[in-house]
Amino acid sequence: MTTPTLLVLDAEPPPRLGRLTGRVRIEHADESTLAERLPHADVLLVWDFTSHAVRKAWPGAGPRPRWVHTASAGVDHLMCPELAASDTVVTNARGVFDQPIAEYVAALVLALAKDLPRTLEFQRERTWRHRETRKVAGTRAVVVGSGPIGRAIDRTLGALDVTTALVGRTRRDGVHGPEDLDRLIARADWVIAAAPLTEQTRGMFDSRRFGVMQPSACFINVGRGPLVVEEALAEALRRRWITAAALDVFASEPLDPASPLWEVPGLIVSPHMSGDTVGWRDELAQQFIQLYERWEAGQPLVNVVDKQRGYVPGH
Amino acid sequence: MTTPTLLVLDAEPPPRLGRLTGRVRIEHADESTLAERLPHADVLLVWDFTSHAVRKAWPGAGPRPRWVHTASAGVDHLMCPELAASDTVVTNARGVFDQPIAEYVAALVLALAKDLPRTLEFQRERTWRHRETRKVAGTRAVVVGSGPIGRAIDRTLGALDVTTALVGRTRRDGVHGPEDLDRLIARADWVIAAAPLTEQTRGMFDSRRFGVMQPSACFINVGRGPLVVEEALAEALRRRWITAAALDVFASEPLDPASPLWEVPGLIVSPHMSGDTVGWRDELAQQFIQLYERWEAGQPLVNVVDKQRGYVPGH
Repeated sequence: MTTPTLLVLDAEPPPRLGRLTGRVRIEHADESTLAERLPHADVLLVWDFTSHAVRKAWPGAGPRPRWVHTASAGVDHLMCPELAASDTVVTNARGVFDQPIAEYVAALVLALAKDLPRTLEFQRERTWRHRETRKVAGTRAVVVGSGPIGRAIDRTLGALDVTTALVGRTRRDGVHGPEDLDRLIARADWVIAAAPLTEQTRGMFDSRRFGVMQPSACFINVGRGPLVVEEALAEALRRRWITAAALDVFASEPLDPASPLWEVPGLIVSPHMSGDTVGWRDELAQQFIQLYERWEAGQPLVNVVDKQRGYVPGH
Repeated sequence: MTTPTLLVLDAEPPPRLGRLTGRVRIEHADESTLAERLPHADVLLVWDFTSHAVRKAWPGAGPRPRWVHTASAGVDHLMCPELAASDTVVTNARGVFDQPIAEYVAALVLALAKDLPRTLEFQRERTWRHRETRKVAGTRAVVVGSGPIGRAIDRTLGALDVTTALVGRTRRDGVHGPEDLDRLIARADWVIAAAPLTEQTRGMFDSRRFGVMQPSACFINVGRGPLVVEEALAEALRRRWITAAALDVFASEPLDPASPLWEVPGLIVSPHMSGDTVGWRDELAQQFIQLYERWEAGQPLVNVVDKQRGYVPGH
């Protein structure tokens, strides 16, 4: 048996791969060399998950890896019709980001309820300004996205005595279908987007949806930027259709310094970091190693993405 | 039976007292008139809990009210040796602030773990700066103060999978005694002060205590300002003995615009608002009405403060 070739698309090399020494030939590629090296790889590890290079290089000539793993929850940055139609198995980092993102969402919900951004503003001005804040217990949240991240958000907010509703692609036990979305967000205090980017979810938070929300509602996106029509959100905040919002993901990342989003009143902008807690790169590398050892042993892979739907189905 | 006189120390009159129409003669006092009116009151309602007027007026001449209720959890602003030695019953607003303060502490813990203050700073500078943040689940908190507020903080942080330890005045079931404090804070990620101000707790967070904490620790005070030696905390933050802190209460309130505390690196300053959620004044008034109706009916009062200890004892 020949030694398999693992091609790693990276800006900085991942840790932990030393564990595979002697069992695999490791090659690296960047955006400029990926197309040329792809035909010689058995496995592709997409470590630089900010890159769209796979989507560009995949349709080219020559053989293709039998397995692609991405060190991310979303797969929108690498999927293309040719990859979807191929026999190549795609796996993702399902699980690593669930709890960190759930905590991040809880941090935003509590910070908005307790008016923390304004507290920090008043502190800069050395102004003592007492305000009444909101109790979180007993408020209502709608979490859009019923995968492991959405479910972790649901659990964490539930632990704070928030009444939650999960919305998924189809109605099932404990999960609402898209047909309930407008009714649910119309009375929600918190609307949280944690869905994968698919043709069904692209642009789902548009002017009409922000118009359905209560004036006291806050909107949070930790899924993918294009779930939201950004100009519509900015307009909804300026017109006070809703009270506040927080975006951790954007249609274009990093967000352009010239973007008007930085200064929309009531909007918190963060740099796509909700899931990235200390040690996350190490966890991602360990997860890949475990998957690799299953693949090497001929065992079935886990975290296998449904390439038509764009996420790992189940539950 | 003559109609009793209820004297209300207020800056703005409380809501709901209309319910007592015809059953009580309501008089109002401010700092300048309290001493003169005190001898004619059967009951004193300390609605303006920021005032220290009771402590000043109480030792004067003449009869004194048989019952004093304060619309606050702490009683340090009204207690004096003469009141403590008297037969007058003192009650407080135990219960109203528990859940709001617990949520406020959770908001601070999560905001610090997720580096939210710096995110807002980078946003103002239109700077996209990815950072790794901390996972809250699995971290350790020490909550100093084992009354209903401390216990609510303990439960809320526990719901976020933080490992918590409660420290009270004496060791008992599920509560550590002061003898464990240094050992516990030496390995805590979060040290939270939620104790009443008494002779035992005054200045308990001093240079030595901040020196015992880990460099990664964060300190939060939602109890009373004088629990903390403020200059010692500022120094601990400047020297990076600890990572961050949040003060909602201060030795002198409102905090002087000239105070150096406004600009201590890593310190969040908020204006004594942790417990004050929308509707809180109404809740405080309702709580007083309920107590008044017990008193009127000759039933025993609840929320009775141990005037020697300075808080309501017992679970």
